[in-house]
Amino acid sequence: MSVSSQNPPQQSGNNLDPWYYNYAARTAGLAASEVRALFAVASRPEVVSLAGGMPAVSALPQELVIDSMNRVMREQGSVALQYGSGQGVPKLREQILDVMAMEGISASADDVVVTTGSQHALELVTKLFIDPGDVVLAEGPSYVTAMVIFRSFQAETQHVAMDEHGMIPEALRERIAAVHADGKKIKFLYTIPSFQNPAGVTLSWERRQEVLAIAKEHGILVLEDNPYGLLHFDAPPPPAIRSLDEDGVIYLGTFSKTLAPGFRVGWALAPHAIREKLILANEAAVLSPSSFSQLIVSQYLDTIDWRAQVDRFRGVYRERKEAMIGALTEYLPNLSWTDPQGGFYVWLTLPPHLDSKQMLPRAVKELVAYTPGTAFYADGSGRNNIRLSFCYPTPEAIRVGIRRLQNVINGELDLLETFAATGPLDTVRDRTFSAPPPNLD
Amino acid sequence: MSVSSQNPPQQSGNNLDPWYYNYAARTAGLAASEVRALFAVASRPEVVSLAGGMPAVSALPQELVIDSMNRVMREQGSVALQYGSGQGVPKLREQILDVMAMEGISASADDVVVTTGSQHALELVTKLFIDPGDVVLAEGPSYVTAMVIFRSFQAETQHVAMDEHGMIPEALRERIAAVHADGKKIKFLYTIPSFQNPAGVTLSWERRQEVLAIAKEHGILVLEDNPYGLLHFDAPPPPAIRSLDEDGVIYLGTFSKTLAPGFRVGWALAPHAIREKLILANEAAVLSPSSFSQLIVSQYLDTIDWRAQVDRFRGVYRERKEAMIGALTEYLPNLSWTDPQGGFYVWLTLPPHLDSKQMLPRAVKELVAYTPGTAFYADGSGRNNIRLSFCYPTPEAIRVGIRRLQNVINGELDLLETFAATGPLDTVRDRTFSAPPPNLD
Repeated sequence: MSVSSQNPPQQSGNNLDPWYYNYAARTAGLAASEVRALFAVASRPEVVSLAGGMPAVSALPQELVIDSMNRVMREQGSVALQYGSGQGVPKLREQILDVMAMEGISASADDVVVTTGSQHALELVTKLFIDPGDVVLAEGPSYVTAMVIFRSFQAETQHVAMDEHGMIPEALRERIAAVHADGKKIKFLYTIPSFQNPAGVTLSWERRQEVLAIAKEHGILVLEDNPYGLLHFDAPPPPAIRSLDEDGVIYLGTFSKTLAPGFRVGWALAPHAIREKLILANEAAVLSPSSFSQLIVSQYLDTIDWRAQVDRFRGVYRERKEAMIGALTEYLPNLSWTDPQGGFYVWLTLPPHLDSKQMLPRAVKELVAYTPGTAFYADGSGRNNIRLSFCYPTPEAIRVGIRRLQNVINGELDLLETFAATGPLDTVRDRTFSAPPPNLD
Repeated sequence: MSVSSQNPPQQSGNNLDPWYYNYAARTAGLAASEVRALFAVASRPEVVSLAGGMPAVSALPQELVIDSMNRVMREQGSVALQYGSGQGVPKLREQILDVMAMEGISASADDVVVTTGSQHALELVTKLFIDPGDVVLAEGPSYVTAMVIFRSFQAETQHVAMDEHGMIPEALRERIAAVHADGKKIKFLYTIPSFQNPAGVTLSWERRQEVLAIAKEHGILVLEDNPYGLLHFDAPPPPAIRSLDEDGVIYLGTFSKTLAPGFRVGWALAPHAIREKLILANEAAVLSPSSFSQLIVSQYLDTIDWRAQVDRFRGVYRERKEAMIGALTEYLPNLSWTDPQGGFYVWLTLPPHLDSKQMLPRAVKELVAYTPGTAFYADGSGRNNIRLSFCYPTPEAIRVGIRRLQNVINGELDLLETFAATGPLDTVRDRTFSAPPPNLD
């Protein structure tokens, strides 16, 4: 195809993409993940994937869902099939209050907005608040797809360091001061306080109060994302940050982990004025979240002993977490990792000269997949880290996966010993990793 | 509450909204509809609502859905409950090709992206393309919530006049020239070519070609929104604009009108390069559209004679449209209206001195609701128009509603006769409205 000799009044594109020059500035931030192609390979059944975040839906007895589904169609079929309100089904919003009460939250159903998974609540909040160049503070490391959203609205994510008790208040103060010194505006502090993704750590009760106080002192809204809070293995995590304050916190919850993600039902609990704008943004985006899905979730909460089902999930994940920690202790005793008390993820620190992204193709060749640590930072950190998910594979598969990972890491260390010119390599292999507490920054 | 004497480092809000100064610039465009409060009243059962756009889901035999639902859970339960891909279920994307083939479209399932209703496709496309100040061209009048989306991304909607054959090509040329003369960039031409919302008119085959040619000549992307195309009362509408060109058109489709909106399953068919970005935007927004909903729709298409069901819907809407046109002819013979050959809407023109928004509270008092014409314009036009929906109420209710509307209009004309000082009022009441063709601009 030759270049056209007659330019249209608007320059539109090039030969690869006729609309290349037409995209919004924000669209430049929407890049495909570098490891995406590899993950397509990693989804082959012979690969043990410790990479994804898929819940163990096989632990949900399908009769429970089938029963709810059929009741909904029998009793409210014409409502289920129709458009609903932009805020969500009133009864479900009341039931969501009961779910949140388990984490210490007291609220009004008026301030709950049902969304297409809590992911969409995160996107809508970002759309409402972010102008190009604004800063979002987030733990370092933080949830990949949250940072994708922030970037897609041209926000800059800046990280706050964590340790085994979660975000470090002093690091938060310092980060705020540094951003303000740069003349930038912080629009919110995004945090996953319980069983954090990807680090697996939990923000202590004292720090929840301290982090909130610092945010309020500086007029910074807190965006509390809590998909895993109910999935504790033993003691529950401390009450939600939202339980401490209703004007300064937007709280995000979801049924993706306590029931199933296939329904795409999550929610935001927001201060009154923000709630109103969230509903308008939700209506603009999808008119209304699925009535069908919402009514099934509502029926399920009404007629099934859902707390017992959450307990069943806890048992499944506890067993898998123990399998993973056991295998790490057995196969990679010299490395350090976090030991989560709930949720889906372990954060592993590699020997200092290893690069987890570079190592990934070799891992996939050895039939194990993980997510490289760099995915969870906006600033290129994390080369030395790996997120390991224990949520989806069976305990046996987890053991096999970690054994394969041992091979991969040993192979990389052998390569390093052969080729590296950076000092005595014994120190690499023999270094003792104090675990816990690892520094997650 | 007194004003704080100690300002935080970031000014955040006021007494009504502590986060008032924190919203993004775009959020100023997200205002609640002026007639929203009134519509809450209008949803009382004694009011005949000719205002909404709810499909007649009662015409869908629920056994068909229940059967599909149970098959999905039996055969693919663990897939239905899990996260899916950001592009949508592959089999459903193949089936969507069959649906689009009915309107002359030939495409690859690779270029289909399933979304949470076609509304979300519209939002994602807008997010990808619109920078603040960009112009979107749209028919005048056009779909309310499309313009809400455009405004929420700080686009300016400029209208192109229609007549009974749809958008007027010469008006399109003139509008493009005027926008370019203003130094503004047109990002796309948004059009509902078949049974337009709200005007009920259909773009002729000749004009489809001409409109596309004009858009291509000026390097303007066409966004073809086609929710109603299959709901024709007699002859089908001309083939989709997308059937003429695959690089210059993004086509939006939905199952909300041919099956049910409660599932929130729609799609975009996009040129290859845009398709890739749409998937990324979809993933950022919702991770994946609901697997559960998608599989049920797919199962329904697979096992049910869905074409026969679409035919049943056609019959229902044809009967309601005829009831509406019959009642208008009987009760408001001096007014003009469009006579749609498919879809959900009639566009009514009032006597010249009447204001449909001002008249609405009186209408609701008389137990009939409609949508004032101004809702469908970005520029304040439409005071003299009303959108009447025949999709949801029964034929009997439609007749009652139009009779009430007659009372309301006659009451307004009496008021005018009593109070107006604008010339001889006989001309208002006696003026003959040539119907069709009304000028819809």
